[in-house]
Amino acid sequence: MKVGFVGLGQMGSGMAARLLEAGHEVTVYNRTPEKARPLVEQGARPATSVAEAAGGEAVFTMLADDAAVATVTRGEDGILRHLSKGAVHISSSTISVELSESLTGDHADAGQTFVSAPVFGRPTAAAEGKLFVIAAGDSGALERLTPLFDAVGQRTFVVADRPSAANLVKLSGNFLIGSVLEALGEAMALVEKGGVDRKEYLDILTSTLFNAPVYKVYGGLIADRRFAPAGFPARLGLKDVRLALAAGESLRVPLPIASLLRDRFLTLLATGGADLDWAAIADLASRDAGQA
Amino acid sequence: MKVGFVGLGQMGSGMAARLLEAGHEVTVYNRTPEKARPLVEQGARPATSVAEAAGGEAVFTMLADDAAVATVTRGEDGILRHLSKGAVHISSSTISVELSESLTGDHADAGQTFVSAPVFGRPTAAAEGKLFVIAAGDSGALERLTPLFDAVGQRTFVVADRPSAANLVKLSGNFLIGSVLEALGEAMALVEKGGVDRKEYLDILTSTLFNAPVYKVYGGLIADRRFAPAGFPARLGLKDVRLALAAGESLRVPLPIASLLRDRFLTLLATGGADLDWAAIADLASRDAGQA
Amino acid sequence: MKVGFVGLGQMGSGMAARLLEAGHEVTVYNRTPEKARPLVEQGARPATSVAEAAGGEAVFTMLADDAAVATVTRGEDGILRHLSKGAVHISSSTISVELSESLTGDHADAGQTFVSAPVFGRPTAAAEGKLFVIAAGDSGALERLTPLFDAVGQRTFVVADRPSAANLVKLSGNFLIGSVLEALGEAMALVEKGGVDRKEYLDILTSTLFNAPVYKVYGGLIADRRFAPAGFPARLGLKDVRLALAAGESLRVPLPIASLLRDRFLTLLATGGADLDWAAIADLASRDAGQA
Amino acid sequence: MKVGFVGLGQMGSGMAARLLEAGHEVTVYNRTPEKARPLVEQGARPATSVAEAAGGEAVFTMLADDAAVATVTRGEDGILRHLSKGAVHISSSTISVELSESLTGDHADAGQTFVSAPVFGRPTAAAEGKLFVIAAGDSGALERLTPLFDAVGQRTFVVADRPSAANLVKLSGNFLIGSVLEALGEAMALVEKGGVDRKEYLDILTSTLFNAPVYKVYGGLIADRRFAPAGFPARLGLKDVRLALAAGESLRVPLPIASLLRDRFLTLLATGGADLDWAAIADLASRDAGQA
Repeated sequence: MKVGFVGLGQMGSGMAARLLEAGHEVTVYNRTPEKARPLVEQGARPATSVAEAAGGEAVFTMLADDAAVATVTRGEDGILRHLSKGAVHISSSTISVELSESLTGDHADAGQTFVSAPVFGRPTAAAEGKLFVIAAGDSGALERLTPLFDAVGQRTFVVADRPSAANLVKLSGNFLIGSVLEALGEAMALVEKGGVDRKEYLDILTSTLFNAPVYKVYGGLIADRRFAPAGFPARLGLKDVRLALAAGESLRVPLPIASLLRDRFLTLLATGGADLDWAAIADLASRDAGQA
Repeated sequence: MKVGFVGLGQMGSGMAARLLEAGHEVTVYNRTPEKARPLVEQGARPATSVAEAAGGEAVFTMLADDAAVATVTRGEDGILRHLSKGAVHISSSTISVELSESLTGDHADAGQTFVSAPVFGRPTAAAEGKLFVIAAGDSGALERLTPLFDAVGQRTFVVADRPSAANLVKLSGNFLIGSVLEALGEAMALVEKGGVDRKEYLDILTSTLFNAPVYKVYGGLIADRRFAPAGFPARLGLKDVRLALAAGESLRVPLPIASLLRDRFLTLLATGGADLDWAAIADLASRDAGQA
Repeated sequence: MKVGFVGLGQMGSGMAARLLEAGHEVTVYNRTPEKARPLVEQGARPATSVAEAAGGEAVFTMLADDAAVATVTRGEDGILRHLSKGAVHISSSTISVELSESLTGDHADAGQTFVSAPVFGRPTAAAEGKLFVIAAGDSGALERLTPLFDAVGQRTFVVADRPSAANLVKLSGNFLIGSVLEALGEAMALVEKGGVDRKEYLDILTSTLFNAPVYKVYGGLIADRRFAPAGFPARLGLKDVRLALAAGESLRVPLPIASLLRDRFLTLLATGGADLDWAAIADLASRDAGQA
Repeated sequence: MKVGFVGLGQMGSGMAARLLEAGHEVTVYNRTPEKARPLVEQGARPATSVAEAAGGEAVFTMLADDAAVATVTRGEDGILRHLSKGAVHISSSTISVELSESLTGDHADAGQTFVSAPVFGRPTAAAEGKLFVIAAGDSGALERLTPLFDAVGQRTFVVADRPSAANLVKLSGNFLIGSVLEALGEAMALVEKGGVDRKEYLDILTSTLFNAPVYKVYGGLIADRRFAPAGFPARLGLKDVRLALAAGESLRVPLPIASLLRDRFLTLLATGGADLDWAAIADLASRDAGQA
């Protein structure tokens, strides 16, 4: 398939590389063009504008936040103006439910299709095509896009016709990870002050009921208090919690743990931790216990 | 080994049966004696008093709460008076750190040994010898008891010399499960109101980052809103959160999620849910969102 | 002084009437013009556009939210285009710190002055000129406006040079009232379930340490569970808490009670209470205790 | 009246002095006897045992906590054994609902009467007879005791027949003060970071809606960050919140702000603040905002 890719950060680069490997014709665009180089060496066509990247049957966007996605979509040079009628904008960024819904309308008005396909997984998973894809949107479009999703992910979950449902699932997933960070932080503060070794404690947890990747990966960072360099920085963690709370607010769903997480992230950012890994919020329980 | 077993509820009966199967000489006691019958048929010796059950090298207690353990230990007919010098009281109940510490002292004063060996696992795991044993206490005693722990569990974790450390680990583990209940409840309230099917959502979670028994088992109950019959009733959930908070209070460790859980359990109990499974707290987020 | 007034709801009408009584030349504008009638009978000049109301030395705006203030300020027919150089826009609405800061810049660019002057007090206080005015902005401008503030309020507090500081004070004040609602709700749920009469309890509080208008007025509504008709509807209460949280987020200040209030308002709105008085959040504690 | 007084701390000494001034015959007892001296100089009869102090028609107890009250009541030398049949034990300490209920039963069994009469007010108010007395118990007994209450307080509120209702009112009152501390702490952290002076801010609050002693007295301490010497130390604040939560737990009333206060007090105690005034919890919001 002839497809564009806008946004070549760690996640986007990995995904675009997998599309190339799967034999698709990929035109890539990034605001700072040097990030495109390795992909061009792999066979990608470099674009000098978003418009150029939007010339195919579908174009992915994988960007940092709502503002970036809104700009590349609605700008002068943007996707809405330059994507062909009938073509698809695949949004893989973690964006708000609200933006997702408004872009769905914009693209429909322009005779195009908008689908949401955010992913679960860290950059290494993206590089290996091991992401999980959460897809929502027009079912015909999703079917046509299956080869693309298969290229970037190990499994695709189709959740609904309305694209924003996928964004909601993604945001709620990040909220659940955040809950694990906070809960582990509290539990480790408690047992450590009671004389139990944090790593031995984590070993018990992950050998028994909590035998899941999220407990192993993040639990290790927390037990060791290893929060730099950041795999996912705290300021983006705050952004995702804010988006989950905003979705809860529109839908009238109170989320007390999300409120707590928001307060934790603000504390972390107010005390110098903006660039630490988001797992660093787990250490605030220890700090409040007089220990960290 | 010649060993006693006091407390033949679902968990205790399973554990005692495994001890018998492993070839130990087991004397069993329960306040309501008919619960001893199946074990006696399997070869256990029935005791008509706690004192009688305390006649061997070690005696297990597996009871509902602090009050019950204090009574069988300190009563006229209790373990402290009747256990031989050098013998061991193995406490497998989920009790407070405070009681554990005071029993440690009492037994030491009586020339006996107190070890804590609470377990993770539901009654089916107890019946199959698949529990996880969290052991703490005198290392010599723990070594001698290894065959007993091996009989009841699939793996034993030795956490510290001080028996109460094992109780703390157990309480913190139950707190972590409670956190999962609340977090799943909030996430499901959110996505359901946004149009996503709860079971499909759970399938996504447990196929990806949250691939752990606790998310599968409890997530299933929550997605289906299947809270009766109770595997573990809400009033015991409240008790365990209270004990975690009490441990946090002695150690000066604030536990905001535990505070939230406490409030959730109180709401559940105040509104008729004392006998529901403790997973029912997860539905309060839906109720607050106007849905359950 | 020649002054305009945009926004003639209960609060705005009372304020404009007081300006007239103090002898100022007042041009009034409201989207639905019939609200202007009583003021015109009192001597106000009716305007058929915002532009017309912006023809004097100063123009007040007293509107429901950020969107309304942004529209009357920035629209084609808006204040920015039609206010004279050197004239002042006095914003009395409860708006966000963010909008306040951006309007400050817009007016400065247009050679005009923006000051914030939100008020504390209910409609009856507005009608009697008994409001408290919280003013912030250029000190020269505030001095010139003193006769206006004296007309609408019993006292004016000047808090800072930066207009948004007054908005922050207003938002934090509403947050403090919200905290009183929640705290009283919890306390009354507790004592009522313990057999104490709610009104007698309130009498004790307001005769002793809590002898303040906010406890008397709102405490009465809460003790009687009298939440309709709304003096200030719950959906506006949610808006104000959201703005306080947003200010906290920009400034990196976690506000745990504000987070709790937000969850309470969402619960109230999700369960049919959007048009109740915002004091109705106090009854959620009783509901959670199985009583309301 | 012939009356005893047990517990001559700052509060108790002031109350006993007022009883003397009102012409009652007062026998005083304190564990460390030198505290009785000033009262003896004023005409009090010194007792060398609790029993001796319990020889009249009524005996007050004003002690630090449940343990102290239980000891002087139930000990060998205690009130239960030595108070005449028909005489009254007036408990003015801030104790748990649970202890109050169990002492009510004990005294009834002994043919005596137990009434609760906790007070609101600081030591200066006690010295001036300006306390507020919250009384509950047998109405005949309360009537007979009116002269005593009138001597120590400026006003007496009779809340119920069941003594523990007065304890609940007292605990809930302290909870409400704690809520004010936390809410003021959050609000001041917010406005200070937004450039508003804390004292000017407090002046606005206490000149308008929050014109009550509790906002003035505690607001002043918080604005100035003046937390030593302690009028009421943080560790006693934690105790009172714990008792309010315990009452909520028995009655099945969730109290989310009380849970937050508990976490704040634990943080304060864990980080060296046990002996600061309890108002110091207000500064934790500033600390979390990176400021204190």
